[in-house]
Amino acid sequence: MKLASPEQAEAAFYSALDKADLAAMMAVWAEDEDIVCIHPGGPRLIGMDAVRESWRRIFAPGPHMGFQLLDVRVHGGRMLSVHNLYERITIGGQPKAHLALATNVYLLTPSGWRMLMHHASPLPPDTPGPDMPIGTLH
Amino acid sequence: MKLASPEQAEAAFYSALDKADLAAMMAVWAEDEDIVCIHPGGPRLIGMDAVRESWRRIFAPGPHMGFQLLDVRVHGGRMLSVHNLYERITIGGQPKAHLALATNVYLLTPSGWRMLMHHASPLPPDTPGPDMPIGTLH
Repeated sequence: MKLASPEQAEAAFYSALDKADLAAMMAVWAEDEDIVCIHPGGPRLIGMDAVRESWRRIFAPGPHMGFQLLDVRVHGGRMLSVHNLYERITIGGQPKAHLALATNVYLLTPSGWRMLMHHASPLPPDTPGPDMPIGTLH
Repeated sequence: MKLASPEQAEAAFYSALDKADLAAMMAVWAEDEDIVCIHPGGPRLIGMDAVRESWRRIFAPGPHMGFQLLDVRVHGGRMLSVHNLYERITIGGQPKAHLALATNVYLLTPSGWRMLMHHASPLPPDTPGPDMPIGTLH
């Protein structure tokens, strides 16, 4: 599937995450040896093999995470698009949500827009969310 | 000072950090209401006022941090340049170093290359560094 915009690439990325779909996840990434992926609190992973292996482990239990994106800030260029956003993450259907910050970078390739970089970092549990306190969203 | 490349902007950013020089620091940032700054473990700050206030607090004790950049990965476009790197941080001249990951985004403006986004996140103390264990650098 050719992703026609950075927004489509971002939607495909989080859809793959929600579904724990490894093939769909890897189809979002650019075929570039220098892709960078940093999971919250984790080390820096570089290249397809390391990135794929990390998602394989995360997805091993099957779908168990829900993602809501909040206050997405976009700086778009002709070839690169940089997004910074809050991820509101629910795990295993529990009501308590975790909040993370993510910088996602997309690249226009001959195969459409693809993810080049995902840098996520956790926020302390008592950090106020973007617009409203955590837990009041519905 | 007009910064002629993303690399010059990055050097100016870390030089300002080393010197705890608020004016030099703010001169590196793009004059854009949507600039984003995330200090390690901190909340997301948006806009000049919030970003300046955060650096003012960090710099209040005077110069006390040393930064060494390791394994900088650059994805450069015509208008945007995205850098991901390790920051090896020493505080107050102590031998123990802290390791953080940073995504820095630079924008080509009429005033040269400026910082648009700084997203830093801490690494756990026992994380191996990019090329060699922390503490063996000299």
